[in-house]
Amino acid sequence: MAIIFSEDYFKNILNIKLDKPTGQLSGHNSGEPFSDKVYSFLKEKNKAKIFKQNEYLNSVLKKNRKKIFETSFEKLMIYKKESSIKNWSINNLIKEKQDDTADILFIDKDLNCILDVKTRNLEKKGQAPNIISCEKLSILCKNLINNLDYENLEINYIGIDWILESNKMVCKNIFVIDLFKIDPKKIYINWAAALQIQFHVEKVDQSYSKDKKQWSIDFIKKYVSSFEERQKKQLIKIKPFKDLIKS
Amino acid sequence: MAIIFSEDYFKNILNIKLDKPTGQLSGHNSGEPFSDKVYSFLKEKNKAKIFKQNEYLNSVLKKNRKKIFETSFEKLMIYKKESSIKNWSINNLIKEKQDDTADILFIDKDLNCILDVKTRNLEKKGQAPNIISCEKLSILCKNLINNLDYENLEINYIGIDWILESNKMVCKNIFVIDLFKIDPKKIYINWAAALQIQFHVEKVDQSYSKDKKQWSIDFIKKYVSSFEERQKKQLIKIKPFKDLIKS
Repeated sequence: MAIIFSEDYFKNILNIKLDKPTGQLSGHNSGEPFSDKVYSFLKEKNKAKIFKQNEYLNSVLKKNRKKIFETSFEKLMIYKKESSIKNWSINNLIKEKQDDTADILFIDKDLNCILDVKTRNLEKKGQAPNIISCEKLSILCKNLINNLDYENLEINYIGIDWILESNKMVCKNIFVIDLFKIDPKKIYINWAAALQIQFHVEKVDQSYSKDKKQWSIDFIKKYVSSFEERQKKQLIKIKPFKDLIKS
Repeated sequence: MAIIFSEDYFKNILNIKLDKPTGQLSGHNSGEPFSDKVYSFLKEKNKAKIFKQNEYLNSVLKKNRKKIFETSFEKLMIYKKESSIKNWSINNLIKEKQDDTADILFIDKDLNCILDVKTRNLEKKGQAPNIISCEKLSILCKNLINNLDYENLEINYIGIDWILESNKMVCKNIFVIDLFKIDPKKIYINWAAALQIQFHVEKVDQSYSKDKKQWSIDFIKKYVSSFEERQKKQLIKIKPFKDLIKS
């Protein structure tokens, strides 16, 4: 468990000014410029090792059209992309999508690191952002438990706080956290928001110290207990309506 | 059960051209100009009877600060606005919110009609839009069954199809439907999307012919059976994870 690029590594991004996209600022369109900035910053320093998720998949498939995606990391990369992989050709490359798991990948000999950028407008008390779907993460955990290939996988989140100053978005803080250092017990699953895990990067727990196999088991325990709690709550909510149609 | 303003009533809006909002076109920012257009069109013809939801509440509270909201319609209007009502004053009016139940209200002597505008970009195969939360609608149904005050309540949806022509959004079709004419059995509840009822206005069923009390009972039956189905599906989904932590 590790943070691959520290907050200090990104210090040149602090106070950087980016053009505000035109139109209303949503979570998505304000996040994109910063995510692009982090990508180009990392790319410049680590050339052949930095990819977007679709670039990685296209590069792997260019080398080997019949590639079998079998590690836990590889399976995560092709999650819900099975048909794009099947229909892949040099003229039908995989495109970048808003719901890609990774904004940025750092691929080294013995390391696959997923980097996801989460931005926050300091002047708005925003809801914690969607981090990853609990279903997707549970499947990753299941694979990690079964394959035990977790040593070379890291998932880091980069939190960027910004404010608007004379029509520029200015980066005020950068935080980097390690998903596998969050105590799974403290993870919040928003069932109504398509089972998304949600947290503010800068505030999230980083106290967990066991290995990723144990993390995976603990996360699945959290998923199951959160599921049971949700089922119970829903049963209570539906009860008056059930009673109404019984009578 | 009735449609208050027919498709023919809106014929002057057909082919109308509205400025495209700057920035990326999202469901929300492309819908707003059309919703504003329908509002001003109706307002011009029905002056004192057309309100936005917040205008209605402010006007009621200006007349009577101690107003008790007791009919099914009134309870729907103050749903999740309890604290704004409590803290209301002439200097602290209720503001328009994106998640208001009604875009437009037509308030007449014996009629309260909720009008909600749903827009669709004809060039995009969009997901069916969020119509109303199933929880909110169930509570309305429960109140209608208990109070039997459904005669003077109507809920109509206005569907507007548009395309982009030289940077203008052009209205191509207008549809008006009656919520209480949709067979509740055919309503789709998206549990993952915060229990939102979703449909395309132009395609939705309009075959139901019983009264609103029966509609309410049938809708609650649908809610309960959809709930039970969802619980079952979720149990199947969670099983492999439960098994994993048992062993």
